Amino acid sequence: MVVSEEPQAAVEGDAAVSKKAAKKAAKAAEKQQKKAEHKASSEQPAPASEEDVSVGRYGTYKLLQSSGEHRERVYKDVVDLSVKDHGTSVWVRARLQTSRAKGKQCFAVLRQSFSTVQLLVSVNDERKVSKQMVKFVGNITKESIIDVHATVVKTASPVESCTISAVELVADEVWVVSSARAQLPLQIEDAARPEKNDDPEALRIRVNQDTRLDNRVLDLRTPANQAIFRIEAGVCRLFRDILTKKGFVEIHTPKIISAASEGGANVFTVSYFKSNAYLAQSPQLYKQMAIAADFDKVFTVGAVFRAEDSNTHRHLTEFVGLDLEMAFKHHYHEVVDTIAQTFTDIFRGLRDEFAAEIATVGQQYRVEPFKFLDPPLRLEFKQAIEMLKEAGVTQGEEDDLSTPDEKLLGRLVKAKYDTDFYILDKYPLAVRPFYTMPDPNNPKSSNSYDMFMRGEEILSGAQRIHDPEFLTERAKHHAIDISKIAAYIESFRLGCPPHAGGGIGLERVVMLYLGLENIRKTSMFPRDPKRITP
Amino acid sequence: MVVSEEPQAAVEGDAAVSKKAAKKAAKAAEKQQKKAEHKASSEQPAPASEEDVSVGRYGTYKLLQSSGEHRERVYKDVVDLSVKDHGTSVWVRARLQTSRAKGKQCFAVLRQSFSTVQLLVSVNDERKVSKQMVKFVGNITKESIIDVHATVVKTASPVESCTISAVELVADEVWVVSSARAQLPLQIEDAARPEKNDDPEALRIRVNQDTRLDNRVLDLRTPANQAIFRIEAGVCRLFRDILTKKGFVEIHTPKIISAASEGGANVFTVSYFKSNAYLAQSPQLYKQMAIAADFDKVFTVGAVFRAEDSNTHRHLTEFVGLDLEMAFKHHYHEVVDTIAQTFTDIFRGLRDEFAAEIATVGQQYRVEPFKFLDPPLRLEFKQAIEMLKEAGVTQGEEDDLSTPDEKLLGRLVKAKYDTDFYILDKYPLAVRPFYTMPDPNNPKSSNSYDMFMRGEEILSGAQRIHDPEFLTERAKHHAIDISKIAAYIESFRLGCPPHAGGGIGLERVVMLYLGLENIRKTSMFPRDPKRITP
Repeated sequence: MVVSEEPQAAVEGDAAVSKKAAKKAAKAAEKQQKKAEHKASSEQPAPASEEDVSVGRYGTYKLLQSSGEHRERVYKDVVDLSVKDHGTSVWVRARLQTSRAKGKQCFAVLRQSFSTVQLLVSVNDERKVSKQMVKFVGNITKESIIDVHATVVKTASPVESCTISAVELVADEVWVVSSARAQLPLQIEDAARPEKNDDPEALRIRVNQDTRLDNRVLDLRTPANQAIFRIEAGVCRLFRDILTKKGFVEIHTPKIISAASEGGANVFTVSYFKSNAYLAQSPQLYKQMAIAADFDKVFTVGAVFRAEDSNTHRHLTEFVGLDLEMAFKHHYHEVVDTIAQTFTDIFRGLRDEFAAEIATVGQQYRVEPFKFLDPPLRLEFKQAIEMLKEAGVTQGEEDDLSTPDEKLLGRLVKAKYDTDFYILDKYPLAVRPFYTMPDPNNPKSSNSYDMFMRGEEILSGAQRIHDPEFLTERAKHHAIDISKIAAYIESFRLGCPPHAGGGIGLERVVMLYLGLENIRKTSMFPRDPKRITP
Repeated sequence: MVVSEEPQAAVEGDAAVSKKAAKKAAKAAEKQQKKAEHKASSEQPAPASEEDVSVGRYGTYKLLQSSGEHRERVYKDVVDLSVKDHGTSVWVRARLQTSRAKGKQCFAVLRQSFSTVQLLVSVNDERKVSKQMVKFVGNITKESIIDVHATVVKTASPVESCTISAVELVADEVWVVSSARAQLPLQIEDAARPEKNDDPEALRIRVNQDTRLDNRVLDLRTPANQAIFRIEAGVCRLFRDILTKKGFVEIHTPKIISAASEGGANVFTVSYFKSNAYLAQSPQLYKQMAIAADFDKVFTVGAVFRAEDSNTHRHLTEFVGLDLEMAFKHHYHEVVDTIAQTFTDIFRGLRDEFAAEIATVGQQYRVEPFKFLDPPLRLEFKQAIEMLKEAGVTQGEEDDLSTPDEKLLGRLVKAKYDTDFYILDKYPLAVRPFYTMPDPNNPKSSNSYDMFMRGEEILSGAQRIHDPEFLTERAKHHAIDISKIAAYIESFRLGCPPHAGGGIGLERVVMLYLGLENIRKTSMFPRDPKRITP
């Protein structure tokens, strides 16, 4: 069971084992524990023939099973180490990123998230560091978690290879908390290597996307990934905080639904006891019902599911939807303005609060700063058609934009207005869902809009039809089975204010904000038609 | 199509219709629009034989389709009306809760969320209010949304039936924005009636749970429901804010998984393209993988699914999980203390920020104030057995607590310690999942805990086994198919800090905080074995 290249973690052996353990389960546990104890032949390397002055100062902890409370020991975070700490003793728990033992010295790099610091373990009588101890540290497998007791020392010249460059740690105790296997399926340094085309590093080994995803736990430890998912958490938090301040109420909508309510295609079927159910493609109908139920302004953050067999850089079968819906008084532009301001505030929040994370992503990927205007640019669909026409692209005024045309338009808009974010209003009615309110001034148009980041759609929204008869007619026109959306249509027979809203794809926002080229980079455990593991 | 009892909403007819409309979709929309125009015979009641001084001051709006921007009109929120506004003119958009016309006067109640105010429409030459207008207002169906222009008037004596009792609105314009059908499937006043047993109202008509849920949009408009879901949003926000301040990172875990990873029972199957997948019963394995991937402290809020055929007051097939996981240094009690403090802070936040909402729920349901200690009470499982024994209940020391025994224990704890929240630590190993760390001092026990509110479990958690070999042995002991959790076990071969965490059921927390008797009251659109609509 124990693979040979793996240092053996010792299992704590001080359990007071009751000989009268009656229950089968407990007996089995006891047996396992004894077996583990047996295997754990030593927690400290056997003393060599010559005396080891470091005995009791290095080794492998027994399995940390919470046997005692050692709370008097305070640990320092790597990110907080500075010249102010020069001369002080600290405990640090971190990963051993790399180590290089040479004679009486071992240089190592310790890592916590995207912060790194140099560690020196050097034979030293005063510090009671023996050559056995140095050898032990040199043999600790990369990615193992270790406890280090050390003195913080100001470095003569900056340590270029670490994020903490002004100080290093000079160890007098080193303990292995959790060992990593010796043969790692990918190397963090390979997975973290810059991927900018003009970088001299660019020709060296890289890790392909599938290998990364197959070994996602390791891949997620790269500085860029540590930063990406902190930025993603930031987008979520900013979205919610900004809307909460505007009086929005967070709701939760069901993922299991009784009918493929937004048209039958692209919906996953679930076995539901003796019947079938479906996975919601969006919270659309439910957030509108919340509006009809007097919640006035609502948002919801949650999983949405699309059974689309699209194997592209920007499609997932499961993603996180940031949805909002809002009653308005006179014009759906009240809602467009609210969403626009929310985006501006998110972009500002990211820029101001996540500078370190954005810079960290930039060390691996080419991250062009994200440009935005305040208030954001709003164009009408017909203006977009005009811009494309001037660029030589013929676009029907009632056709949806193709993905390449959207990207071209993004470049044209960027060149003309210097913004990576804009709003495209007044889409053709024919290309929008049945519940979209037609434009009162042009029956071919509608009160609907998409929003774009770097030329890719990240939000789709509209004023919704709040009149039950009109909605019924439009649903029939779209060949929607009315009986399957009866409760939804009934909502509007109970009195409902005019309202509009939109749905945002979280992973797309993060991908495009950072200018990454694949949505799998911004989904922690992505799902696509070919991948549902790990 | 138009049901006869329903006042006809007029559809705006000023669309500039292109005669050359080429596309089929646009033509159809146009046709629908014309049809709607046709039906909308009048937006204002036909003038009666005698002159109507109120012409242009009441009626039904055309369908609000965003044809113009009337942003100069500012609306006042009902909750903000006070004696300070005496004598001023305001616009209010609200629901007509009830109306009572009698001769030359019509008294009505306007409602926004859980705020209400009295409206008076009275024949008055100076105000240009005709008897036709009073009659029109008297005929507006309950639950319709109306725009009112009115003078705020200080009342001689408090209006007991409204939340705003010091002022009333005296109208000079009344417009219907959206009509409700005349025959409502349930009456808000019935759905909102107090359900306290000693209340004189208790014997009057009530609405049963299924009728409520079948007509959830109406049911959600009761003051209690308006308050409950705002409190629920508050619990979510407090949970996230408190943890974010403690350095936790929000993550999103997949709901579609490749194998029934936590044991085969109670899992929903999804058709996934040409194969099958499953709905995650918890984010357990993924949040642990995030810890192994160096995120250190994580939380996630999202849907979890249980295919349990349990038809009880506290089981749902889909609910919102508030999950957290945290690396610790020495002892899992570091994590227990963090969770405990999080709960204390949530309870304090609810008490301080949601007093009005809690009071509103209390008008319909018996809400006993929720009592908690700071720091919270922590008992060990063996102490609980002792307390139950003293109360005459025999409980095996390796058996799980039954639901009635949990409730009894809750009462005993409340009587002895005066708290509605407590932590029960050190559960028997035999009753916990395979990944639970055994107690180092007692092989029959484990480093696991449940937390309780008013005697019902709302969190289950534990230290997890972070050693891959030990974890494999425990999984095999539980007859888990190791091949199905390979990626999970592999995480611990890559080095993983000791960690612990827990999963909280959001709907249970809100139900028990308020002392409600059914979890369907705290799920906006609940899912159980018999209900997946609306």
